[in-house]
Amino acid sequence: MTRGALYLVPAPLDFGCDDQVPLQQALPENTLKVAAGLTHWICENAKSARAYLKRVDALHPLAAPLQAQQITELPRDVHKKGDHAPGSGFDAKPLLAAALAGHDIGLLSEAGMPAVADPGSSVVRAAHELGLSVRPLVGPVSLLLALAASGLNGQNFAFVGYLPQDAAQRTQRIRELESVALRSGQTQLFIETPYRNAAMLQALLQGLQHQTRLAVARGLTLPGSSVRSDTVKGWRAQPVAAVDERLPAVFAIGR
Amino acid sequence: MTRGALYLVPAPLDFGCDDQVPLQQALPENTLKVAAGLTHWICENAKSARAYLKRVDALHPLAAPLQAQQITELPRDVHKKGDHAPGSGFDAKPLLAAALAGHDIGLLSEAGMPAVADPGSSVVRAAHELGLSVRPLVGPVSLLLALAASGLNGQNFAFVGYLPQDAAQRTQRIRELESVALRSGQTQLFIETPYRNAAMLQALLQGLQHQTRLAVARGLTLPGSSVRSDTVKGWRAQPVAAVDERLPAVFAIGR
Repeated sequence: MTRGALYLVPAPLDFGCDDQVPLQQALPENTLKVAAGLTHWICENAKSARAYLKRVDALHPLAAPLQAQQITELPRDVHKKGDHAPGSGFDAKPLLAAALAGHDIGLLSEAGMPAVADPGSSVVRAAHELGLSVRPLVGPVSLLLALAASGLNGQNFAFVGYLPQDAAQRTQRIRELESVALRSGQTQLFIETPYRNAAMLQALLQGLQHQTRLAVARGLTLPGSSVRSDTVKGWRAQPVAAVDERLPAVFAIGR
Repeated sequence: MTRGALYLVPAPLDFGCDDQVPLQQALPENTLKVAAGLTHWICENAKSARAYLKRVDALHPLAAPLQAQQITELPRDVHKKGDHAPGSGFDAKPLLAAALAGHDIGLLSEAGMPAVADPGSSVVRAAHELGLSVRPLVGPVSLLLALAASGLNGQNFAFVGYLPQDAAQRTQRIRELESVALRSGQTQLFIETPYRNAAMLQALLQGLQHQTRLAVARGLTLPGSSVRSDTVKGWRAQPVAAVDERLPAVFAIGR
């Protein structure tokens, strides 16, 4: 029997936002078509996955009705501790049983590309261990859109996830990242959860040096999106406009 | 007068390949529509830009005929030395004159996203300096597709460009990257030009440690694409199949 493949299915970046963008604005025809053809899913949250499939169905009729779709959530521990936490003992191979039985499976995250700045890489690794074909589909990746729009070095960059929430630790981490960026020229990208963007920006403007460059991208691909990129000196000179705190933000530090 | 915006326009990943993929397979409807509406371009190579616009025109009629499109190439020095070479004195602002006169401008690279693993960030930076709106459009980014498909850590990763061509220097760099990946858990991504993939893979299998994980993605989004991800031990145990050397490759090292 032919084994199924693991498709990495991107989602639009409007998760949790009031305004939804038309799916075809964020996803190529081929991504929509493949997603519509799948009947087995591994996802972060089944409710969000069903909402996504409803939107796909409106453009490409699903191969199986929503109620008949097999949707499995990643265990909570993977969300909390990451895909490869030492000693977690998590084995994603059982999640891929349907692929061994011949069904293609879609891996879906709530926004953007699964397994990039989001859980799921343990499932991809398990697919490789089982010898399954892994097929990433094209879609939006907020990090990369932000990097491209930042005007900072895109030929050498790192994404470092979230910064610590504790103020002192956060300031220390900001200085570490600045030091790497200034020394090596490697742009440092990180993200913050909505409603903490303003506090993060304030911490950055306090902690960074005058000549360091800082870019902040908010809500890319969404209505009301913005990108601002300037030296810290420039940021300090021009007051920051009030921003929609609900829009997810990507921050970049560079030289 | 309203100023034009700078759009970052992604291209499919089939540059230089025999088989071209249908554009709508790689690009969302919205990207095609915006590209078709632009009449001013900054690109790596005017010939490639015209070939791209012909493909767009077949799906969405261009706002101006091909002969009437204003296409400007980035200076050669930017390709060779990078966008922000110290002392280059390159100022991209004059390239954006049309935007000050009210025209939207598209920044286009030969494959993938402009200014990511490709020239163009100096143009984006100049746009910010001029106060222009910068609008990235969704499209394929080979690095990110490769990262997602690798099963390596996608919550902490770096892209470091090309490795040195000199064998001894390359081996040293491979060991440095492995050391960072093993110590910090930060996945290290890099690329190689076609026809050097086999040599790079050989150098990696010689230089890396047994338990280090190595992923190689070739020709993602194209016919004949492949992703293999395994420990170095696993790679050594299974002979590498003959590969199409013309397909661009992304390499990833992780733990």
